[in-house]
Amino acid sequence: MSDRTGPLPHLLVIGGGFAGLWATRALAKAPLRITLLDRSNHHLFQPLLYQVATAGLSAPDIAAPLRHILRRQRNVEVRLGEATAIDATRRQATLADGAVLDFDYLLLASGATHAYFGNDHWAAHAPGLKSLDDALDLRRRLLLAFERAEACTDPAERAAWLSFAIVGGGPTGVELAGTLAEIARHTLRDEFRHIDPASARVRLVEAGPRVLASFPEALSEKARRQLERLGVEVSTGVPVTAIDAGGYRLGEDYVAARTVVWAAGVAASPLAHSLGVPLDLAGRVPVEPDLSVARLPHVFVAGDLAAVKRADGSPVPGVAPAAKQMGRHVAAAIRARLRGAVARPFRYRDFGNLATIGRMAAVVDLHGFQLWGLLALWFWLAAHVFFLIGFRNRLVVLLNWAWAYWSYQRAARIILGGAGSGEQRPTRG
Amino acid sequence: MSDRTGPLPHLLVIGGGFAGLWATRALAKAPLRITLLDRSNHHLFQPLLYQVATAGLSAPDIAAPLRHILRRQRNVEVRLGEATAIDATRRQATLADGAVLDFDYLLLASGATHAYFGNDHWAAHAPGLKSLDDALDLRRRLLLAFERAEACTDPAERAAWLSFAIVGGGPTGVELAGTLAEIARHTLRDEFRHIDPASARVRLVEAGPRVLASFPEALSEKARRQLERLGVEVSTGVPVTAIDAGGYRLGEDYVAARTVVWAAGVAASPLAHSLGVPLDLAGRVPVEPDLSVARLPHVFVAGDLAAVKRADGSPVPGVAPAAKQMGRHVAAAIRARLRGAVARPFRYRDFGNLATIGRMAAVVDLHGFQLWGLLALWFWLAAHVFFLIGFRNRLVVLLNWAWAYWSYQRAARIILGGAGSGEQRPTRG
Repeated sequence: MSDRTGPLPHLLVIGGGFAGLWATRALAKAPLRITLLDRSNHHLFQPLLYQVATAGLSAPDIAAPLRHILRRQRNVEVRLGEATAIDATRRQATLADGAVLDFDYLLLASGATHAYFGNDHWAAHAPGLKSLDDALDLRRRLLLAFERAEACTDPAERAAWLSFAIVGGGPTGVELAGTLAEIARHTLRDEFRHIDPASARVRLVEAGPRVLASFPEALSEKARRQLERLGVEVSTGVPVTAIDAGGYRLGEDYVAARTVVWAAGVAASPLAHSLGVPLDLAGRVPVEPDLSVARLPHVFVAGDLAAVKRADGSPVPGVAPAAKQMGRHVAAAIRARLRGAVARPFRYRDFGNLATIGRMAAVVDLHGFQLWGLLALWFWLAAHVFFLIGFRNRLVVLLNWAWAYWSYQRAARIILGGAGSGEQRPTRG
Repeated sequence: MSDRTGPLPHLLVIGGGFAGLWATRALAKAPLRITLLDRSNHHLFQPLLYQVATAGLSAPDIAAPLRHILRRQRNVEVRLGEATAIDATRRQATLADGAVLDFDYLLLASGATHAYFGNDHWAAHAPGLKSLDDALDLRRRLLLAFERAEACTDPAERAAWLSFAIVGGGPTGVELAGTLAEIARHTLRDEFRHIDPASARVRLVEAGPRVLASFPEALSEKARRQLERLGVEVSTGVPVTAIDAGGYRLGEDYVAARTVVWAAGVAASPLAHSLGVPLDLAGRVPVEPDLSVARLPHVFVAGDLAAVKRADGSPVPGVAPAAKQMGRHVAAAIRARLRGAVARPFRYRDFGNLATIGRMAAVVDLHGFQLWGLLALWFWLAAHVFFLIGFRNRLVVLLNWAWAYWSYQRAARIILGGAGSGEQRPTRG
């Protein structure tokens, strides 16, 4: 159905995240046929994914069906599926179901996945957080750990179930650790009869010298102190050297912990390899100033998958605003190409960084303008609600937050995927 | 932890549905230790489960953590786990994780499961709807069917993906069929490029002479006409005689359909067998007038698992109000037992029946007082929101309904559990 039979050139966009969706929307009036391919049926608002994992929001609150978002854009067809290989020269992508899609232009925006730095066997014991399924799996593990602790009678095993480690002190790690500490100390209060959830050990482990390394040092320090006030143990400067089913090794010390969460590293989607061009160390695709690939001018890369440098040589970070800007830039570059012009080089506009720490505080760095504490939280809240897609989602998220703020409760403390059977580290299909 | 070491007798409640939870709450001041055991961590508001399956509500909207509901009732401990066997004589229950719980009194309220009337191999092709996991699996199948139809090029296969059958014309079947027809005709409008979702065939199949058999005939007829207005094909009087991966056989006719939903029969939870008493044909436990089991006076059964007759000899239906009444009655019977008295016999107070048909109509039978159409829908809505547990849930559900009413949209059209790979009938873990 996507063969080049139509009169218009065909753009295949792989990935309906911020980069792919923003590029697609910016091409609404371009003389193109567009196919947007994604493994999921929804666009995901990733900055709030940790709240689904920590049971504050439901999965549908932070997602919107791609078909619905794009229903009125008549030059787009949305296709649910997974690309497994790209032949850039023959201009074809192969899908997991065997279908082959031809294209004239390709935008590869399939994003990042977890990276375990050569320790892929850690993945089974320390899951990461990239999709809604990841978030529901993590929610399940976090809630089940308290259930297992309540049911078991051996003190050492109980302590291991109440020992949590979050590996990686970036925004996701900080947000997960702060929220988990609040769940243990407040949300679950009075609910157990054999354990005190407040005695849970929540540890945030960062191999580098400080948490939130992309923020100014003063804000890192504020974030650390706020985490410690919430009861999070913050360990910096020592790397995790092993993770297994029973715990993790930090430097020389082995710590028993049944729940380890990976928030330390991302690598580019493996699809990048099939472009046949050299990738950087994180598996990302180096791109030209217009975000196309050298010697493959009809192929563009945007979002977490693109290795892009700023004017000062530092890399453009893997955050939502950067992905949106790249997506819009690729749209402009393709529009320029279609009329025989040349696009301006991509320039990242860095508006700043935000991260929350528990339900009462955040840190905000707007380059020369810093906020922290409750004021920063309000700023964070406004920014996130503003950027959420869909009026209903905004209202529901606001309502859930107001309720969580007043009650300390979490709206979505529901274990899905089977809970009662005896297995300890279940996986979801 | 639950051995009879304490001074108070120990009541084990198996099942945190309407019967088990209402019994537990009614015993808040009784001189008992209570353990409430459930396979899930949540109480589920089953009457709205079809709305989770049809993407109108999120799973957490209709569920609340059992621990949270009971956190202030100090004589209760909530335990997550699945009972696999009961030894009524030795007064012990064995759990799937190997633990053994002793009890002095037992309330068995583990509910019902799907029954395929001896055709258990149909289960893989026609899933039923009892738990949140069932609902999310069904949501996934319904939404994926349209995706598969859009992606496939063979007209016969496409038609099979757009052919849906709901087997069973009770309230669940009627509610699923009406909502699915609206999704096909309204919600998905404009979103596909190769199929017209409105051309989907939604068929409600009832072996008996009419849908909603428990309602007065006039309301059954109104429901049928309303379903047909929504585009549902209603087949009555002919049984389904086969279901396989490609479709179903209705009488002599084989109908190609990739999505068949089972709403036809329930059977009592298999746990009933381990009581060692004769069960009725549906696997339910016949009970004495006080809801205890003959010759096992310390064992009570309530909810869908109990075979209870009304004064006129007809069975008490498997609906939420009946389960709540039985749960409260068991609490009264145990309180009477504890002070050496005898409980009054259980008497079911039947307040009536309700069912919705799409987003604009319902039928309500209050025994002598009938409502239908939009007025009945408002009645239905008020009743359901009133009985939902939790202030936040009520608000979110109301908000979602208002939004769905105005926009024809469904708030939770998110496929979870992996969507993009090639398999056609995936299952979730």
